[in-house]
Amino acid sequence: MNDFKKSYLKKYKHIRRKIEENFINLHPIQAGGRIPNDPDVLETIIDYIDGYSTCDFCLTGRLNEIGTPPICDLHSDLAKFCDMDEVRLVPGCRQAQFSAIHALAEPGDTIIVDSLAHYTTYLSAERAGLKIVEIPNSGKPDYSIEYDSLNDLISEVKQNTKKPPKLIFLTHIGYNYGNLNDAKKTSKIAHDYDIPFLLNGAYSIGRMPVSGKNLGADIMTASLHKSFASPAPSGLLLANEPHAGTIFKNSKITGNWSDRSFNNKEIEILGCTLPGVITMGVMAAFPYVVERVKYWDKEVKKARFFSKELENLGGLYQMGQKPHNHDIMKFESPVLYEISKKHPRKGFFLYEELKDKKIWGVQPGITKSLKLSTYGQSLENLKYIIEVFSDLINS
Amino acid sequence: MNDFKKSYLKKYKHIRRKIEENFINLHPIQAGGRIPNDPDVLETIIDYIDGYSTCDFCLTGRLNEIGTPPICDLHSDLAKFCDMDEVRLVPGCRQAQFSAIHALAEPGDTIIVDSLAHYTTYLSAERAGLKIVEIPNSGKPDYSIEYDSLNDLISEVKQNTKKPPKLIFLTHIGYNYGNLNDAKKTSKIAHDYDIPFLLNGAYSIGRMPVSGKNLGADIMTASLHKSFASPAPSGLLLANEPHAGTIFKNSKITGNWSDRSFNNKEIEILGCTLPGVITMGVMAAFPYVVERVKYWDKEVKKARFFSKELENLGGLYQMGQKPHNHDIMKFESPVLYEISKKHPRKGFFLYEELKDKKIWGVQPGITKSLKLSTYGQSLENLKYIIEVFSDLINS
Repeated sequence: MNDFKKSYLKKYKHIRRKIEENFINLHPIQAGGRIPNDPDVLETIIDYIDGYSTCDFCLTGRLNEIGTPPICDLHSDLAKFCDMDEVRLVPGCRQAQFSAIHALAEPGDTIIVDSLAHYTTYLSAERAGLKIVEIPNSGKPDYSIEYDSLNDLISEVKQNTKKPPKLIFLTHIGYNYGNLNDAKKTSKIAHDYDIPFLLNGAYSIGRMPVSGKNLGADIMTASLHKSFASPAPSGLLLANEPHAGTIFKNSKITGNWSDRSFNNKEIEILGCTLPGVITMGVMAAFPYVVERVKYWDKEVKKARFFSKELENLGGLYQMGQKPHNHDIMKFESPVLYEISKKHPRKGFFLYEELKDKKIWGVQPGITKSLKLSTYGQSLENLKYIIEVFSDLINS
Repeated sequence: MNDFKKSYLKKYKHIRRKIEENFINLHPIQAGGRIPNDPDVLETIIDYIDGYSTCDFCLTGRLNEIGTPPICDLHSDLAKFCDMDEVRLVPGCRQAQFSAIHALAEPGDTIIVDSLAHYTTYLSAERAGLKIVEIPNSGKPDYSIEYDSLNDLISEVKQNTKKPPKLIFLTHIGYNYGNLNDAKKTSKIAHDYDIPFLLNGAYSIGRMPVSGKNLGADIMTASLHKSFASPAPSGLLLANEPHAGTIFKNSKITGNWSDRSFNNKEIEILGCTLPGVITMGVMAAFPYVVERVKYWDKEVKKARFFSKELENLGGLYQMGQKPHNHDIMKFESPVLYEISKKHPRKGFFLYEELKDKKIWGVQPGITKSLKLSTYGQSLENLKYIIEVFSDLINS
């Protein structure tokens, strides 16, 4: 029923964000996805904002073969950047995960995943009708993946299902504790059993240097709106042969009456899956990302500084790897929880106090723990944040 | 290998489009996806361009429940706009089609689709492991769907597979000839057999008024970058009960070691599937689209005028329904093909002559037929285009 009044529709007009302009933003899912602070990037995006804007010069019916704008080049450069054979731009890392899992396994099959994987890994497996077996982790405080259990898990799957697991899936950087998991160790075990190894680089590719081949990845997935300074939804599905051939298989369906067929379209990405402005945002961000990953060691150094200084305040304990290897960090914060119990604003005091001090990104209402990212922050900002926490705790 | 030289990466900088500014654009996949010519829309888009920009105030972990910006409201208004029970924003119509088909059918099942469906319908079925049976069409020149064969097709599927087809799929507007197919007639037959009916509104929703319930749709899909003045990739997956419950089913998977579960996440859309700027582009376009569909009769009138005038030039024959009911039109153009045979630029003469006259959107190299959209063009523009064709043919 299209009887919307103009006055009612006003709520969809003049909507502005202004978080990045007005706050120091520590939100862990937002830190790596800020587009470059470069007017040229914005101009490219605005120029390609209309629907199928990338298809002006499409000659073959495939996004990854378009020459103008250089989307074909972008694909080969992205593959090179990640050191993998093949890549496709897809609408998000979750779509990449599902495509790979769906292509490599049949309903009823079992795959092995690390127990700190993102929820989209579980959902991708569930959607594909698979069973999952988790690699345990050591729990608090380190949350280390127990790689040594992998051999036993593979044997158990073989015993219980009469076939090996179809895939071993490792999250490169855990979304919760920011641990850098050991891809090389995992891929070695996977390959000892001839099982394909998928590395989810949602929080690594675009932040830090990642060579898929060096790490032994057969398949990789990336989240560009999480870690590649790109608008959402954007992701990468990367694969090496022979798995690339399976994952990027062309359509074979034929219309029973019409005899129509679509042999140049890839099934798992449903043809061209990321046309338009998002691909152009990735393209415009690429030179910037190529440059920024070179300075990853500085980001790690800042994260370690921040962790140490925050812990020095007392009552704040960084979980996960120490020294830390990533900008995503989770702290247990009993000292803040104690304050919240006596504070008139209860659990919301932290969010509100930080907001007041122009610091953004902690979950409202939560004080028992603190999850944040230091990515892209200046040392000056980090010092200011530590000062704010110090005041909060000591006042 | 991240050894890209700065000089090499220059090709990804200063990329501009300028098609819409410099040409009358008749490209059939682009006409309905131009974002509103409204600085407010652009400002909203720019403000939300960073990665997970829509997640500042996410409290429940679900995009469709976010209150600020009003994404929750947008979902209920989109459902109301299409007169359906439930809707989710998804990254494109193809993703919507696959989600619905995947949720409603099992590998090996059969679905019935119209033989003029878009290739993504075939790929969605193929990806889900389904067999398709096509509803024939009358072929040249009308390409009418043969609804009367539907009863027989259903019986044949029942006989051959021992169960009814899992779905009857109709493309509301054919992408090739722009025919308006009869959703009411098809849904009536589907419901006589208790088979769910999916209507693909890729070229209708956002252009013309569409009431899903009135047409008897159980499920609808929409392409917002094709027909909703929105950036890509954007689509809608709409469903009425009881099918909505099946399609938007929540996750039930549990980690075998961790006991983790994700009960508030929807499997078929893999959780939140369209965060960030694209959803904001749809939101900003919504008031404009609500308004523009009210003037659909004017678009049809212009299309009919254009078709008639072009045919009057001689040697150009509009295929599909007559009088025509949509802005997408395909003409057979033997008169242009004859010219191309003697022209020094052969088949490219048409594309180049039109480009020279600031008309864009016909496929380079093709003269035997002509596919275009008159959507959003002024009568003045259409008259100019007809004049250009007249000159081409008569000179």
